[in-house]
Amino acid sequence: MNHKIQIFDSTLRDGAQGEGIQFSLADKLAIVRALDGIGIDYIEAGGTTSKDLEFFAQAQNLPLKNSKLAAFGATRRAGISVADDASCAALLKAETPAVVIFGKSWDLHVEKIIQTTLTENLSMIFDTVEFFAKHGKEVIYDAEHFFDGCKANRDYALETLKAAIAAGTSRIVLCDTNGGCLPDEVAKIAAEVAAVIDTPLGIHCHNDTGCAVANSIMAVLSGCTQVQGTFLGFGERCGNANLSAVIANLQLKRGYLCIPPEQMKNLTSTARFIADVSNVSLTNDMPYAGKSAFAHKAGMHADGVSKIPESFEHIAPDKVGNARRFLMSEVAGRSAILEKISKIDGSLTKESAETQKIAERLKELEQEGYQFEAADASFELMVLKELGRYEKFFDLDYFTTIVEEPSGITEYSSSAVIKITVDGRAEITAAEGDGPVHALDKALRKALEVFYPSLKNIHLCDYKVRVLDPQNATSAKVRVLIETTDGKDTWSTVGVSKDVIDASWKALVDAIEYKLIKDI
Amino acid sequence: MNHKIQIFDSTLRDGAQGEGIQFSLADKLAIVRALDGIGIDYIEAGGTTSKDLEFFAQAQNLPLKNSKLAAFGATRRAGISVADDASCAALLKAETPAVVIFGKSWDLHVEKIIQTTLTENLSMIFDTVEFFAKHGKEVIYDAEHFFDGCKANRDYALETLKAAIAAGTSRIVLCDTNGGCLPDEVAKIAAEVAAVIDTPLGIHCHNDTGCAVANSIMAVLSGCTQVQGTFLGFGERCGNANLSAVIANLQLKRGYLCIPPEQMKNLTSTARFIADVSNVSLTNDMPYAGKSAFAHKAGMHADGVSKIPESFEHIAPDKVGNARRFLMSEVAGRSAILEKISKIDGSLTKESAETQKIAERLKELEQEGYQFEAADASFELMVLKELGRYEKFFDLDYFTTIVEEPSGITEYSSSAVIKITVDGRAEITAAEGDGPVHALDKALRKALEVFYPSLKNIHLCDYKVRVLDPQNATSAKVRVLIETTDGKDTWSTVGVSKDVIDASWKALVDAIEYKLIKDI
Repeated sequence: MNHKIQIFDSTLRDGAQGEGIQFSLADKLAIVRALDGIGIDYIEAGGTTSKDLEFFAQAQNLPLKNSKLAAFGATRRAGISVADDASCAALLKAETPAVVIFGKSWDLHVEKIIQTTLTENLSMIFDTVEFFAKHGKEVIYDAEHFFDGCKANRDYALETLKAAIAAGTSRIVLCDTNGGCLPDEVAKIAAEVAAVIDTPLGIHCHNDTGCAVANSIMAVLSGCTQVQGTFLGFGERCGNANLSAVIANLQLKRGYLCIPPEQMKNLTSTARFIADVSNVSLTNDMPYAGKSAFAHKAGMHADGVSKIPESFEHIAPDKVGNARRFLMSEVAGRSAILEKISKIDGSLTKESAETQKIAERLKELEQEGYQFEAADASFELMVLKELGRYEKFFDLDYFTTIVEEPSGITEYSSSAVIKITVDGRAEITAAEGDGPVHALDKALRKALEVFYPSLKNIHLCDYKVRVLDPQNATSAKVRVLIETTDGKDTWSTVGVSKDVIDASWKALVDAIEYKLIKDI
Repeated sequence: MNHKIQIFDSTLRDGAQGEGIQFSLADKLAIVRALDGIGIDYIEAGGTTSKDLEFFAQAQNLPLKNSKLAAFGATRRAGISVADDASCAALLKAETPAVVIFGKSWDLHVEKIIQTTLTENLSMIFDTVEFFAKHGKEVIYDAEHFFDGCKANRDYALETLKAAIAAGTSRIVLCDTNGGCLPDEVAKIAAEVAAVIDTPLGIHCHNDTGCAVANSIMAVLSGCTQVQGTFLGFGERCGNANLSAVIANLQLKRGYLCIPPEQMKNLTSTARFIADVSNVSLTNDMPYAGKSAFAHKAGMHADGVSKIPESFEHIAPDKVGNARRFLMSEVAGRSAILEKISKIDGSLTKESAETQKIAERLKELEQEGYQFEAADASFELMVLKELGRYEKFFDLDYFTTIVEEPSGITEYSSSAVIKITVDGRAEITAAEGDGPVHALDKALRKALEVFYPSLKNIHLCDYKVRVLDPQNATSAKVRVLIETTDGKDTWSTVGVSKDVIDASWKALVDAIEYKLIKDI
């Protein structure tokens, strides 16, 4: 086939409606870069608040290779002109090549929720689409509640689409806004629309029946050529269609073109990166990208897979950059590892004993909760250690951190005492901080700067904490990710422990050692 | 319609293949009681190990009202008789009314994995089904890899079904064992089988494409009358069909009878109970039963739902025993706030001075980094404080936490000392822990239990840390979310501070005070 299906990601808009999801500006930009990298066609964000506009102002400056930015807003309000509508004006200021305009398809919503007439709603759709089309925008029209609207009043629902088409929209997107549809009805209704409308169609599904991925696929099979969703499926209530699964299903199983074929192997790492930035745990059982997606527990399955992979695997895991997991399964992961370590030692091959050893160590650390996807510097240090090329820069004699409440005579709640030794010379010092990690970080660098003055130029620019097994509550394991910069380069390190301070300590030490190695 | 669809739960068998899932005997019995209670037709467990037999021996004694127990095993091995097959003998000893026999439908598996002939495989199926049918068992035949087998060698796959039918199976279950199917092909193949076979059909889907629920539904629409899966969807790799979603979809949206109608309202509590017993967190976004399934964050949605529920809800949440939630956030607006606080004081209106005051306080706290959408209990405590109805349960004199590296003589890295006062009586105590928060949590509860013995029954079941302004690195603000349970109820609290220990302390104190208020 090889029909192109446009992939439209709304992680920054619908995804941000997910419970517990909140993005900083830096998070948003990091996600845009990742989505662009893997070849997503459209990236949508809200387009009406000052925060939104600040995001778009910065996002315009990114050198995007694949993605178009799209700002999202409603049709004009009832009874006023588009020019007088503040939200529409803001949307224009986002200065994106594409805008997404959503309007009402369901008569119930028109009459009871926004409380206007069916005729005025048609004008609102027409006027708004026309306004943005005349301003040279590519307009994508999101027909909100289209499926519910169609079931309630089919003729009116179709009329709303025709209003958008007459006004010059370049695409009509059928939305199952309440997420209540089952796959047979999505297939049927999408096919009926495709039969009467020539404008390219898209599909936008929510997951309230657990069918968002399936519904999106049925819509594509019925003629839709754009799929809207969020890369990891998060969104309001039960989430949106999980695009990582939609992409893999359509491209690997049905021959559609969703992303550049050479990007498919980056599906898993992109999913994990976006999860890290969003500070959500990728569920283990997520199709294609989850840690368990190709994990075989039953002995019979493990046996079958080692004889003939397809006997218990629906696709080869490396097609999506994931890996089979069970005893001695590094074969799959080893080429990925080699790709990384060959930068450190070009003489290594897939079969080298060192590669084998690193693969085993990696597996061990992953078992403990480490994840190196967002911690390249720690990975490099681990490789150096395994290759016997690592030299210590200092020895820790001890540290103690104390937190007191009430906090006593200073503004700080915490203090840390540390003693280190470098080449036989000891340095003991102390520092205060906003918390024990802050105090420890300050104390460690204070002590080390005596020996390594270049450390004065580094500072931490990001600090993330992820609880790995939250059901163990306060004795759960935590993974700390730290990003450090010296003004020129930026690098990331990781630490895992049951104790947030110990996990932070490991990541801090890696961050400092990486800088010192870099400077040699 | 009101056609009966049998629901067949494999939580104890396929579910136990999920990564991280492990059941004790007591867990298994508790799950059987819960599944029986809600009206599941069949409950399956493995049937061949001594542990399995011990489970069935005990489960027979449960006064089950709705469920039949089913033991699961393979066809006899190649080249021996059923009577000589130890696994088949064990299966009989399980003494269940029903047995599930799985056999090979895919020629690749027959010839390459179990390495026998296509003819011998047919005999293995026939002999084994016949053996159990003659022993008076209701035999359910699971056609493993049926869909893949059908795609590879349709005639042979159908022959395997006919062997089971000739031997007296009462049902044929079509299994997508590798989970790689998409809904259109499940629909097509199931309909083709239904057209040529009179024996009742079942469907067994895995979720590797993210379509297990949808595939099950398409199979039912094509004529299958039993759905196999696991109540919460967990299982090997990406899991099995989530039965709680399948049941609600079929029964509430299509009029099939899956469970007794009066049980539907227990869907959410049953899901949460099974999650608790299984020691997994029910994901917030799980369809129907998840905490976020009917949670509205966007102001426009909250507004719409309060006017007309179906405007943004695909079903009424109380039909499945779940509840609507308005997530408290700056976007939620005052009507959402009112909805919540009216439970505390019914006399308040949108215009009351108190409502205004609470809205302002909420905004202030959100500015500081608080978020109450996942912290209902802290929100309620905040409201009580603003209404002047809050009373302290204890005073903190001081606490100190110490973390030492190396960790010295105990296995713990951390310790905490705390002194509190209740009604003029002081209590000073200490505890050790895996980190400073763990130590502090233990010490605080140890001190308080002296005065409030009911605190012995609570424990923390979730602990999350979010760094709010990561660019401030180790002195960044953190938000801690804690979930606490007393075995009956579960509540969530929040704390924000630059110090992770202080933030945790705030959330811990709220968690305890909420429990004490609840108990009054």
